[in-house]
Amino acid sequence: MLKKVLVANRGEIAVRIIRAAKDLGIATVAVYSDADHDSLHVQLADEVVAIGPPAAKKSYLNIAAILQAAADTGADAIHPGYGFLAENAGFAEACEAAGIVFVGPSAEAIRTMGDKVAARSAAHAAGVPVVPGSMGRVADIDEARHILIDTGFPVMIKAAAGGGGRGIRIATSLAEFEAAFPQAAAEALAAFGDGGLYMERVVAKARHIEVQVLGDGTDAVHLWERECSLQRRRQKVWEEAPSQALTDRARDELCQSAVRLARAVGYSGAGTVEYLYDDASGQFYFIEMNTRIQVEHPVTEMITGIDIVAEGLRIAGGAPLRLHQRDIMAKGHAIEVRLNAEDPSRDFAPFPGTVSDLRVPGGPGVRFESMLYAGYTVPPFYDSLLAKLVVHGATREAAIRRLVRALGETRIEGLRTTKPLFLALAADPAVQANDVHTRWLEGWLDIHAARLVPELEP
Amino acid sequence: MLKKVLVANRGEIAVRIIRAAKDLGIATVAVYSDADHDSLHVQLADEVVAIGPPAAKKSYLNIAAILQAAADTGADAIHPGYGFLAENAGFAEACEAAGIVFVGPSAEAIRTMGDKVAARSAAHAAGVPVVPGSMGRVADIDEARHILIDTGFPVMIKAAAGGGGRGIRIATSLAEFEAAFPQAAAEALAAFGDGGLYMERVVAKARHIEVQVLGDGTDAVHLWERECSLQRRRQKVWEEAPSQALTDRARDELCQSAVRLARAVGYSGAGTVEYLYDDASGQFYFIEMNTRIQVEHPVTEMITGIDIVAEGLRIAGGAPLRLHQRDIMAKGHAIEVRLNAEDPSRDFAPFPGTVSDLRVPGGPGVRFESMLYAGYTVPPFYDSLLAKLVVHGATREAAIRRLVRALGETRIEGLRTTKPLFLALAADPAVQANDVHTRWLEGWLDIHAARLVPELEP
Repeated sequence: MLKKVLVANRGEIAVRIIRAAKDLGIATVAVYSDADHDSLHVQLADEVVAIGPPAAKKSYLNIAAILQAAADTGADAIHPGYGFLAENAGFAEACEAAGIVFVGPSAEAIRTMGDKVAARSAAHAAGVPVVPGSMGRVADIDEARHILIDTGFPVMIKAAAGGGGRGIRIATSLAEFEAAFPQAAAEALAAFGDGGLYMERVVAKARHIEVQVLGDGTDAVHLWERECSLQRRRQKVWEEAPSQALTDRARDELCQSAVRLARAVGYSGAGTVEYLYDDASGQFYFIEMNTRIQVEHPVTEMITGIDIVAEGLRIAGGAPLRLHQRDIMAKGHAIEVRLNAEDPSRDFAPFPGTVSDLRVPGGPGVRFESMLYAGYTVPPFYDSLLAKLVVHGATREAAIRRLVRALGETRIEGLRTTKPLFLALAADPAVQANDVHTRWLEGWLDIHAARLVPELEP
Repeated sequence: MLKKVLVANRGEIAVRIIRAAKDLGIATVAVYSDADHDSLHVQLADEVVAIGPPAAKKSYLNIAAILQAAADTGADAIHPGYGFLAENAGFAEACEAAGIVFVGPSAEAIRTMGDKVAARSAAHAAGVPVVPGSMGRVADIDEARHILIDTGFPVMIKAAAGGGGRGIRIATSLAEFEAAFPQAAAEALAAFGDGGLYMERVVAKARHIEVQVLGDGTDAVHLWERECSLQRRRQKVWEEAPSQALTDRARDELCQSAVRLARAVGYSGAGTVEYLYDDASGQFYFIEMNTRIQVEHPVTEMITGIDIVAEGLRIAGGAPLRLHQRDIMAKGHAIEVRLNAEDPSRDFAPFPGTVSDLRVPGGPGVRFESMLYAGYTVPPFYDSLLAKLVVHGATREAAIRRLVRALGETRIEGLRTTKPLFLALAADPAVQANDVHTRWLEGWLDIHAARLVPELEP
């Protein structure tokens, strides 16, 4: 078992990890930027180390400062949380070189899954369905024409060296494709110094469904799936488990495929395999694997009763996976919503400020994961997540009712938050019927956003 | 299903019931005394009705005012919570006469279980072991001598018409008994106008173990047991589930016996059958049945995942019991501690006042059941329960670690609370080994209480 873990993160996830460590009897070290001196994670940790100015690259991305803090406090492990250094293979290697356990998978697994083409190949090799398209770089237009037989139209042409949506073109016919392909190659060469391209079918009106896995480097299990189709600008805002869109058979295939991929890369710790799911065909397609704990992990904890962060810490401490697949039962339905310091009626403009009063919702089946306290000032430097409200009920309908009840109890005074968005979504017939896809929310917001005016208590 | 429920209570249990009703889509009515105008239960309910001055008999025990409030708001049911009118058979009858559903068992079941002699007879008839002694009133000294063969010494002589510990004598030998018996009869006649006596063996160093049951008037199931051996002046302060003192076989016998009793009295709703358990002999003995929801119900909810208050409301609405015994699984270990506005270092002197700041603990496996909010003034008129902190973990050890962690996060500023008691108990080797009995805590407090000084934040 680990003895002392340094948490290389901030906000609610740092609080979450500190709680899990304490629950296991592991001592905790918080690091913090100058902007986070008064943060809850700093108050809850056993030891604290200041690591630099607010700018992330000078503090939460500052590998040298973080490793020095671990050395100074005698921490035997570092938990990266999500974001910041969580999927940085170089950081995982630097931890290893310093003799400190990186709580997560190997640098190699991080690197493979961080490279879109390599991840796609690894998934294909493990028998995980990928979106029809090229298995790597497309050699030339002749090979591209062959691939089009599989993909059909519309098809996406992507720069192999691109990322984050850059270097993408969509063609809806062969004529468009033949014109776009050489242009895309030239643009990729100019933009990334690498003219390599790959191709993928465009999956229209897909759901986002992902599978939580836990591995110990040798074996792996799944903790069932989550559906996260309600997204804005590719950011999830509402996540739930299980997905009501899946048949039991599709669920089984999906979860098994995630386990195969985790085993194939010798995955260690908590990870998530993400898929698009096409209702019309019943097909699912691998998107990517996130090699870290995810924001939405509590919905899986609520349906399985498994503390995923604690299991990750145990495994990092050298314990073998103690969960057997047959014992991992999903019970009821869980929903998480992300309460952000944003005004949904004004294009989600950030709204940092001071929490003048806080009322935390309670009762059975309610978790409020947050770093807030009355008097806390939300700094303007970081993401706008204030709290995750997670509810569990016997059915999806019961979970939605509980969500509305718990939102009604929640008061984060002094800030504008996305609470009105979730009250409106919970009342929407399409959400109630789970008749949604990954682009549904953006269309819905075009119509409804102006009315989602947050209260601002005096 | 019920449409609108009036909650005839206050404090945390009123909040708990309002939450459960809302989770089920049932409208809520709060009643409140003049002292409770600013209470959380008043803030959370859909409708509110003032019912009188702070003195309980003028408000929360005022049957006429409560029935009038139900009539005025069109409530179709009344939930009595615990305390106040919860075990008042006359109130249950008055509700029925007014055409309002009483959320709980029949008046007859309340009355039977409220009469010690009748309850003991009912238990015996249902094959539930009772403490060896007389089955009802003892006719005379000759019958008493026969009963002594079963009870042995020490033996308790109780006034049949007594209650709350009044009219009790203990004899440790036949000579003492023969002197005490006529004296006790004369005293009972003088004090209660009824010289009737009954007798029970004194069970030394017993544990308090109780079984949660749910019935629908026809069928009944159990939700396993709770151990509540840590008591001060017969008040439970720390409750847990399951009991580590029981073998699986003893657990099964205990739980089955509770179901037999519930079925025998046609029990409806949530109830608790309480027992003494003697480690040395492995014997358990019926004490009484509480015909209402109990303070400590959340520990059972944590291990079973069943919302007991919601099930009670469903049954009161006419739904049959939907739980099957074979599906009610106990998972992990849960502990509840009662945070009272009392100073344990000063003989638990009450400490009403204003909550200047509140920090609610969080993370997985933690429930904080409370009516507190920052700025709330605890009135001096009612019981001193401020909050129930309930934790769940995979094992008892894990639950205790989580309890300590969550207590560390909890801040109820402006008041003195019993928090130091629970931090000290969690660290005590006897508590950690569950090597306790119902009188253990009083002895422990004699030694340790003076050191349990609550912090009082400025």
